[in-house]
Amino acid sequence: MKLEHVGIAVKDLNHSKKIFDSLFGYQSYKTEIVESEEVTTVFYKTGDSKIELLQANKNESAIYKHIEKRSEGIHHLAFEVTNIEQEIERLKSEGFQFVNKIPKQGADGKRICFLHPKSTNGVLIELCETMI
Amino acid sequence: MKLEHVGIAVKDLNHSKKIFDSLFGYQSYKTEIVESEEVTTVFYKTGDSKIELLQANKNESAIYKHIEKRSEGIHHLAFEVTNIEQEIERLKSEGFQFVNKIPKQGADGKRICFLHPKSTNGVLIELCETMI
Repeated sequence: MKLEHVGIAVKDLNHSKKIFDSLFGYQSYKTEIVESEEVTTVFYKTGDSKIELLQANKNESAIYKHIEKRSEGIHHLAFEVTNIEQEIERLKSEGFQFVNKIPKQGADGKRICFLHPKSTNGVLIELCETMI
Repeated sequence: MKLEHVGIAVKDLNHSKKIFDSLFGYQSYKTEIVESEEVTTVFYKTGDSKIELLQANKNESAIYKHIEKRSEGIHHLAFEVTNIEQEIERLKSEGFQFVNKIPKQGADGKRICFLHPKSTNGVLIELCETMI
């Protein structure tokens, strides 16, 4: 599997954009509001993969809850798959547990689902398939 | 910067290898003991980047302390640089704080240093330069 991006939960996107602009020495290439996840996201290219900063737009957002519980920091790892339904079936048969087994629309033109971190060493893992 | 790898802290490498072998559908390509960090590491290729599982070999290891404090999960993001001393100077001048400003030997034939997570939104960031 290809590591497509790493999601980082932040409180204040404008503040964090300044930090990551300075860190990388270049600017983000895209900002996108993802209604389904109640977040605003900012993307940086980091070689073949991306860094996605995520700010909650509502208190019901998973990102808001993550920051309340664990503070800012890395939220998830996303791996690219070519057929998300097929991959879900394969991983279900391997015993992995899912947060959502039915793919939903994510940022960056992707269909996504999340594996539950209790079956993956505490790591929240997203599978994503690029929509044509 | 290129995302070179993501480090994941685990308690039991043999147990976690089974999980990640199943997740990726293929096996790790390397196991390495890193004396300086008191860890054993296992690497998986994930496209242009890698996933590094880290198990503490001693209770003094940073990985042991991380697991005690925050449980298993993502530990750090590592970005590849061509000249680590030059990058340290650039980031110091941008106001970033470091865990170690003098590069040390890491896994996978790299010279490494860590930025302090308090200056990077709670994310522990490694800079790494491949040794020739």
